[in-house]
Amino acid sequence: MAKDLLILTTGGTFDKRYPEGQWVTEFTFPPGQESAVTEILRRARMAPEAFACEWLFAEDSTKITDAQRDIIANRCASATQRRIVVTHGTDTMTRRIDPETGKVAATPNTAATIAARKLDKTVVLTGAAQPAVLRDSDTDFNLGLAIGAALMAPPGVYIAMNGLVAPWDAVVKTVVGSFRKFEA
Amino acid sequence: MAKDLLILTTGGTFDKRYPEGQWVTEFTFPPGQESAVTEILRRARMAPEAFACEWLFAEDSTKITDAQRDIIANRCASATQRRIVVTHGTDTMTRRIDPETGKVAATPNTAATIAARKLDKTVVLTGAAQPAVLRDSDTDFNLGLAIGAALMAPPGVYIAMNGLVAPWDAVVKTVVGSFRKFEA
Amino acid sequence: MAKDLLILTTGGTFDKRYPEGQWVTEFTFPPGQESAVTEILRRARMAPEAFACEWLFAEDSTKITDAQRDIIANRCASATQRRIVVTHGTDTMTRRIDPETGKVAATPNTAATIAARKLDKTVVLTGAAQPAVLRDSDTDFNLGLAIGAALMAPPGVYIAMNGLVAPWDAVVKTVVGSFRKFEA
Amino acid sequence: MAKDLLILTTGGTFDKRYPEGQWVTEFTFPPGQESAVTEILRRARMAPEAFACEWLFAEDSTKITDAQRDIIANRCASATQRRIVVTHGTDTMTRRIDPETGKVAATPNTAATIAARKLDKTVVLTGAAQPAVLRDSDTDFNLGLAIGAALMAPPGVYIAMNGLVAPWDAVVKTVVGSFRKFEA
Repeated sequence: MAKDLLILTTGGTFDKRYPEGQWVTEFTFPPGQESAVTEILRRARMAPEAFACEWLFAEDSTKITDAQRDIIANRCASATQRRIVVTHGTDTMTRRIDPETGKVAATPNTAATIAARKLDKTVVLTGAAQPAVLRDSDTDFNLGLAIGAALMAPPGVYIAMNGLVAPWDAVVKTVVGSFRKFEA
Repeated sequence: MAKDLLILTTGGTFDKRYPEGQWVTEFTFPPGQESAVTEILRRARMAPEAFACEWLFAEDSTKITDAQRDIIANRCASATQRRIVVTHGTDTMTRRIDPETGKVAATPNTAATIAARKLDKTVVLTGAAQPAVLRDSDTDFNLGLAIGAALMAPPGVYIAMNGLVAPWDAVVKTVVGSFRKFEA
Repeated sequence: MAKDLLILTTGGTFDKRYPEGQWVTEFTFPPGQESAVTEILRRARMAPEAFACEWLFAEDSTKITDAQRDIIANRCASATQRRIVVTHGTDTMTRRIDPETGKVAATPNTAATIAARKLDKTVVLTGAAQPAVLRDSDTDFNLGLAIGAALMAPPGVYIAMNGLVAPWDAVVKTVVGSFRKFEA
Repeated sequence: MAKDLLILTTGGTFDKRYPEGQWVTEFTFPPGQESAVTEILRRARMAPEAFACEWLFAEDSTKITDAQRDIIANRCASATQRRIVVTHGTDTMTRRIDPETGKVAATPNTAATIAARKLDKTVVLTGAAQPAVLRDSDTDFNLGLAIGAALMAPPGVYIAMNGLVAPWDAVVKTVVGSFRKFEA
């Protein structure tokens, strides 16, 4: 069952690190095509033959472009696997509440882009409130949650965050940063 | 969806700690009815209204009795929730390979006890290779994996370990301690 | 002996955290007058009667002003304790090599400000390459290093970083961010 | 200054790990001559040329023999370095209070063995309340504390534990496991 699993990584808070040097004020992504997912799956003692993991790019989700969203959706479409987990920044993973208006923001989001392809696959997006390198991170739990859901859910595009798993269009990112059910 | 979730804790490696004092050689469970599950779900930023969590007892799984297995199965049966996660020691969670014979050991196991009740519920058992208090623990991932599966899988009794989710009787604990698919 | 110890906290990488919410790109300091030093000394199981700890302010060391440097030096001067540890951002803790010129930068630094007071006290400055909230942080070690030195060294102003303890004017921060001996 | 530092590792709680497999109830030391000290000094970003580190053996301090204590003292005597840190189990690092009598126990201890050599060197013993592999460990702090003291203290044999540094015969391990000043 698990051999059918593909994990795609695209950066986001999940993979942010604290750079060393002088006069540092912003986060960075690690050099090389390396995601924290590798280390988490080692900690999880997951059998290497049970999954494939691919680094697509590392981008802050506030800066992800339409072209990058297409890269993700295209890879989901071309994958031989029918169960896919995508790690992604949380600001444009799915819809969010606009802090100014209190309503759903018009920002483009990756879940919608994937859903538009109407793939007959189970795709679960997850991310992080705190980077994997932090002691108090939610990355290990979230990746587990997404994989558990991806292995068991019927085809569709889902969000797995805050211990919640639901279809992408039934969830929003709130102003304080957590994901909640959303009755449109 | 998530409001339907009950988490039961029963000890095992998941909840073991390192005692302080003098002449210490064995692990202990924390004083009080407290499981590491609470801390992990806080780290996961899971909404409190999304689940109920109950501490049943804290026992090493090599010492769990038939009476204790019945406590677990009874609570699964009486629960109003239809989606249940059980944290449990790994030696008697499901069947294991006997290191002496290389065949499935005859030791009683909790998954079998729950399955015998033929409940119309989704019950997922999980545990840990390394206690939650360790830096390199698999508890956060495993609890996420079990919750993701419990929220999405049809009724049945499942094991969620090593990034694998499968019906309890299709999995064994190997001699080196990991869980693998098992064709009976 | 240890009752003579005062710990002053002033922010820096040591106390930086990763903020949650939307569109986050910079680090923050925790709300309230709270330093990670408290948590580290709890982990260290240090007896509360052995030290006093004071939060002076929380500032990125690239932004510390002359007025803030005076606050630190004044508190060292007024303290009844003769052994003092100061947690501080690393960019202006002592002198640094200018990445442009490869020579010692002219930036003001806090060690020089304290040393100018010619106090008959042992003052040890320390900081962090990675914030205390990170798994791979050097804060626990560095705070221990600084306290061990502060309890044992004769009066003077010292830097304790990278496992090195030396008089402040015999150390520089290098371009890659580590502290090394410097023959002026 | 720091080039004069030798670190000797001898096991103890500091280096204990949680074994995986089946029917596990006791702690183990890692296979190979490897101490957690290596990983901690990497986290501390300590310059490799600043110290030498030697693994002598890995033993629970309740089982250390007179012969093993002599190995430690002999190595301190033969070392070219004049500043030495020893990681050691806490039960026989120095004197302890006997839980039965409430008085100092007659158990042999390593600090006394080293002190009897009357070396003209600074030797600092440290250990751990929680193994280095635990999230809440005191090992990083304690190793820093011992190194800071070893680099600065005059010749003598010292204990560095619980944020305290003092001559070995002025400290005892209490019944609850912490180290405190002791007026003989």
